[in-house]
Amino acid sequence: VAAAAIPNGRGPLGLRVMAAGKDYFTDKAPFTSLDQLAAARAAVAATGRKYMVYYSERLHVESAVHAGDLVRAGAIGRVIQVLGLGPHRLSAASRPPWFFARAQYGGILCDIGSHQIEQFLFYTGAADATVRLAAVANYNHPQFPELEDFGEASLQADTGASGYFRVDWFTPDGLGTWGDGRTVILGTEGYIELRKYIDVARNRAGDQLYLVDGRGEQHMELAGKVGFPFFGQLIRDCLERTEHAMTQEHAFKAAELCLRAQELAWQAEQG
Amino acid sequence: VAAAAIPNGRGPLGLRVMAAGKDYFTDKAPFTSLDQLAAARAAVAATGRKYMVYYSERLHVESAVHAGDLVRAGAIGRVIQVLGLGPHRLSAASRPPWFFARAQYGGILCDIGSHQIEQFLFYTGAADATVRLAAVANYNHPQFPELEDFGEASLQADTGASGYFRVDWFTPDGLGTWGDGRTVILGTEGYIELRKYIDVARNRAGDQLYLVDGRGEQHMELAGKVGFPFFGQLIRDCLERTEHAMTQEHAFKAAELCLRAQELAWQAEQG
Repeated sequence: VAAAAIPNGRGPLGLRVMAAGKDYFTDKAPFTSLDQLAAARAAVAATGRKYMVYYSERLHVESAVHAGDLVRAGAIGRVIQVLGLGPHRLSAASRPPWFFARAQYGGILCDIGSHQIEQFLFYTGAADATVRLAAVANYNHPQFPELEDFGEASLQADTGASGYFRVDWFTPDGLGTWGDGRTVILGTEGYIELRKYIDVARNRAGDQLYLVDGRGEQHMELAGKVGFPFFGQLIRDCLERTEHAMTQEHAFKAAELCLRAQELAWQAEQG
Repeated sequence: VAAAAIPNGRGPLGLRVMAAGKDYFTDKAPFTSLDQLAAARAAVAATGRKYMVYYSERLHVESAVHAGDLVRAGAIGRVIQVLGLGPHRLSAASRPPWFFARAQYGGILCDIGSHQIEQFLFYTGAADATVRLAAVANYNHPQFPELEDFGEASLQADTGASGYFRVDWFTPDGLGTWGDGRTVILGTEGYIELRKYIDVARNRAGDQLYLVDGRGEQHMELAGKVGFPFFGQLIRDCLERTEHAMTQEHAFKAAELCLRAQELAWQAEQG
C-alpha cells in the first residue's frame, strides 16, 4: 500500500496497513514523533511487514543515484563529509493549512530535513550517527508563526564522517525551478558535487554531477541516463522478502535521526 | 610595517612594531592564542597604532568584494546565512616544518578558518557572534600527527544570522587550482554563490558570481572588473587615522572567534 497522508498521519496509517498484512510505502517524513517510530518498529517486528519510505531526493534523482554508484566504486576514496543544501520554494498560497501547523508537518528538520539525513547515512555508509547541532528559525514569515523557514543540523556518523545540512523555504521567484538542491560529498581522494534540480544560470536541466579526483575535473549530465533502480528493487523485495532497495533499519534510522534533530532544535529554542 | 611571520610569531612581532610607533599589517591568522590577542588589544589602546590583518580570501578576491557591494545594496534582502567551503591543496612536500606543528600554525580553524569567520562577520554585518559547534580532525594524514586536515564550525551572529563553514586539506590533484573555495550567502530575497578560484569543469578563471533573486538568475564573470579597494583604503586610513578599509574591532573580533572556535574544537577532542 502506497500512501501520502499528512505527515502526522503516516505512522498511524502504516500500523493499520501492516496489521492488515500488507507492506507499506509512505512519502517522507515517515513519522512526526519518536513514539510513532517505536510503534512502527514494534509492528514490523510483530508482522514481518515492511515500512518503506519515499526519500525522493536520493531515490528519484538520477545524479544522486549515480553518486551512490561512484562512491561505492571508490571514486573519491573514503567519504569524510556530506554537505547538503535543500532550499525549497514556499509557494504559500498553494499550501494546505497543515503545512503551517507544526504538530501536523513535524518541523522543518523532520520534514524536508529527512531527505538530507537519509543521504548522509547512505553516502557515508553509516549505520548510525549522533546529532551534534540542530537549529530552526522563522526568519521572515511572521504571518505563519508555526512555520520554520530555516533549519540546519550537524551530525557525526559512526564511520567518523561529518555531516552538515541546511534546509529552508527561501527559493527566490527568479530561480528556474523549486529549489537549487546541492549535495557535496568529500572523500579522501576526491569530491562530488550534485546540482540536482538546476545548474544556476547555466542549464535548466537537473542531474548535473561534478566529480574532481586525482586525475581531473569531470562534468556529467545525467538526466535520462541512470534510471531509478529503487522502485523495481522494492517490488522484488516485497515479493521475495529481501532488502536490496533499502533496509528497514536504514529507513527507520534516518527517520529517528531527523526526529532527534528536530527535538534538539526545539529544546535549544526554549533555552 | 607589513609582515608574514610564522603564525605564532605574528602577535609578538606586532607588539614590537606598534611599540616602535608604526602601524602593523600581518598575514592571517593574526594570533594563535587569546593571550596574544589581549596583548594586541592593549597595545592598540596604548599606542593608537593599527593592527591590521590580510584576510585575503575576501579582500583580495574580486567576486568577494563585489558580493559585499551587492549585499550592502540590498540585492538579496537581509542575510540569514553565510556558508563557506575552504578546501586547500596540502602539497605536503613543499611545506615548512611549522606547517605541521600545532603550536606554531595554531590549528586549522585558527589558520584557514580565520578567512571564513571574517567573511561571515562581514556579509552578515555582525559585530559579534557565538560559536555553536567546532570540530577538527585528522582523517587521512597519520604521518603528520599534529596536522588537522579537516575543520568545521557553526556560528550565530548577533544579527541572528547563521554561519557554517568547512575547511580542509583535501583538494585533489586533478583540480585546476589550489582550492574550490565557495561562499553561499542566503538572504530573505535571494542568494549569491561565489566560485572564487575556479568554476569546476567549466572555467579555470575564478571570480564567478551567481546571483538569484526575485527577477531571475545571473552569472557574473568578475576577474579584472572589480579591483581591490581595501589596499588603497588602508593606506589612507594609516595616513588619516580613519577606519574605512576595516575597523580595528572587526579585525580583532574575527581573530577572537577563530581562536574561540579552535579552543572549543580542542576541548571537544579531549572529551
